[in-house]
Amino acid sequence: MSFADIAAFESALRTLPAPDPAARAAAAARQAELTKPPGSLGRLEEIALFIAGWQGRARPRIARGRAVVFAGNHGVVAQGVSAFSAAVTAQMVANFASGGAAINALARAAGLTLTVVPLDLDHPTADFTEEPALREAECLAALNSGAEAIGDADLLVLGEMGIGNTTAAAALAAASFGGAAADWAGPGTGIDAAGIAHKAAVVEAGLARHAGALCSPFEILRRLGGREIAAIAGAVVAARQARVPVVLDGFIASAAVAPLAVAVPEIADHLLAGHCSAEPGHRRLLDRLGLTPLLQLDMRLGEGSGAAVAAGIIRAALAAHDEMATFAEAGVAAG
Amino acid sequence: MSFADIAAFESALRTLPAPDPAARAAAAARQAELTKPPGSLGRLEEIALFIAGWQGRARPRIARGRAVVFAGNHGVVAQGVSAFSAAVTAQMVANFASGGAAINALARAAGLTLTVVPLDLDHPTADFTEEPALREAECLAALNSGAEAIGDADLLVLGEMGIGNTTAAAALAAASFGGAAADWAGPGTGIDAAGIAHKAAVVEAGLARHAGALCSPFEILRRLGGREIAAIAGAVVAARQARVPVVLDGFIASAAVAPLAVAVPEIADHLLAGHCSAEPGHRRLLDRLGLTPLLQLDMRLGEGSGAAVAAGIIRAALAAHDEMATFAEAGVAAG
Repeated sequence: MSFADIAAFESALRTLPAPDPAARAAAAARQAELTKPPGSLGRLEEIALFIAGWQGRARPRIARGRAVVFAGNHGVVAQGVSAFSAAVTAQMVANFASGGAAINALARAAGLTLTVVPLDLDHPTADFTEEPALREAECLAALNSGAEAIGDADLLVLGEMGIGNTTAAAALAAASFGGAAADWAGPGTGIDAAGIAHKAAVVEAGLARHAGALCSPFEILRRLGGREIAAIAGAVVAARQARVPVVLDGFIASAAVAPLAVAVPEIADHLLAGHCSAEPGHRRLLDRLGLTPLLQLDMRLGEGSGAAVAAGIIRAALAAHDEMATFAEAGVAAG
Repeated sequence: MSFADIAAFESALRTLPAPDPAARAAAAARQAELTKPPGSLGRLEEIALFIAGWQGRARPRIARGRAVVFAGNHGVVAQGVSAFSAAVTAQMVANFASGGAAINALARAAGLTLTVVPLDLDHPTADFTEEPALREAECLAALNSGAEAIGDADLLVLGEMGIGNTTAAAALAAASFGGAAADWAGPGTGIDAAGIAHKAAVVEAGLARHAGALCSPFEILRRLGGREIAAIAGAVVAARQARVPVVLDGFIASAAVAPLAVAVPEIADHLLAGHCSAEPGHRRLLDRLGLTPLLQLDMRLGEGSGAAVAAGIIRAALAAHDEMATFAEAGVAAG
């Protein structure tokens, strides 16, 4: 799908389909018959019901699991907010293309195809402390790049790469959920305490610059976000319209959803938080989104890496749900 | 390997090999060169170094991952401590054999072979509130069943099945680490509060019955444990002698290690806790063992199920460690 204009995006965000209650109920009935004490597989059981509802199948499966990594560059890097130079974004996209990044290995391990979507890397966003990061047409194009990337996936893992984008993510989180910039600014790829304080000041400057104009999800994404962030937002809305369950990666992917969730909290209903990253604001962001992460492994790489690892958990959950025998089939006494 | 007698077991427990420092250092040097910010894969990096040290390879792998489920029956079931009848142990072993249990699906999903070792199911242990659960020869045989089951595995997932064995595990934990029986007795497969209180009283009775005789790991295992529990202990010691890393499943598998760890705390050095189960005593037990679980998914099934899911995380960690490009290979600036 694609969004013809900003109004079409906002309309898609406000008319969200629900999961299939019959498929979910049939999955729950099956769970109750499987050879285990009720509830003893814990979150694996919840995951199976969740995917059943969204895929509309009592015995859901991952046949076309897809990890998508969106990449973008950020004008705010000029403010000295990252330990890495902006050139690294394109270098890492080349690394993805040649198969050498963490996400290549982790997507392969989880049986996911990997799609990398570099978004106009030669044209960073504007510095959001000075002007909106993106023009309207640029932001809409980024949303559509996300929407188009979902393809025919039946499970979607969403990640990103973009030097400087934890700063944009912190700004999005603060604009969406309030709190001080310092609540949301963290070490990212590895800046020190002075660097974090500076990053928080940059975020404050951005919030002050756009005060009064952060009146819609689109405007928040456009003014403070970036192309890869808007693409994740577009992918989330398009995946919801197609009832495709989504696994979010870390702080930035979660921040991309934040402006949507403030306007329409039920956007989070088809999302799984793959993990809680080591970036301090991520836990707070997941709490605000009402998401409980599947993993907490102190990862903080991005690239979809945490969500890809979580996809392995989802596969395990579906395998148990699909392959286990019932008490009747196995001749086991049900307690 | 096998233990010729009790003294041979105790001797093996007290002469533990260490990991290979050169392999671990070489793995760490490789980690530092991979295309990611240092430390950004969090526990995945720790796992890779851990397996490297124990396997003695800078680029470790899982070529012969094996899940072993030991099954045993417990005389203490006569005290009414379980929601299921003892007959279910053999029924579930049949279910494992025909491929219908959760561990079948989860081991397959993690690329592990599954070995099921039923231990004299027709002869339950004695009721430990009345006499030692096992005779010396029976306990030694169970230890050896565990030791023999490790085969040529290069990663070992250890689980169990045995109606009533959370009661034995609570007794082992209390005998090993102290505290009240109520600190260690939980709902198991699903008993209510009154059932838990009764279970705690049964554990107290067992501790009182054997007071003064719980003087060695072997005696604790023999008097309060069970065949599948002793087998896990034997497998852990044998795996350590062979430098094979082990992933422990839940409360019972952890309790099997408790008597060993009190005598020789470094026994835990080659163990990963696959998960923290929903059984309340498990977190406390992991803390005492000094183990931080990889997963916390509210699982409480046993069978090795949580550890098998965790094996997927370990595979992901090794895939990233082995397959990623270095900064030099990828032409990425290292920050």
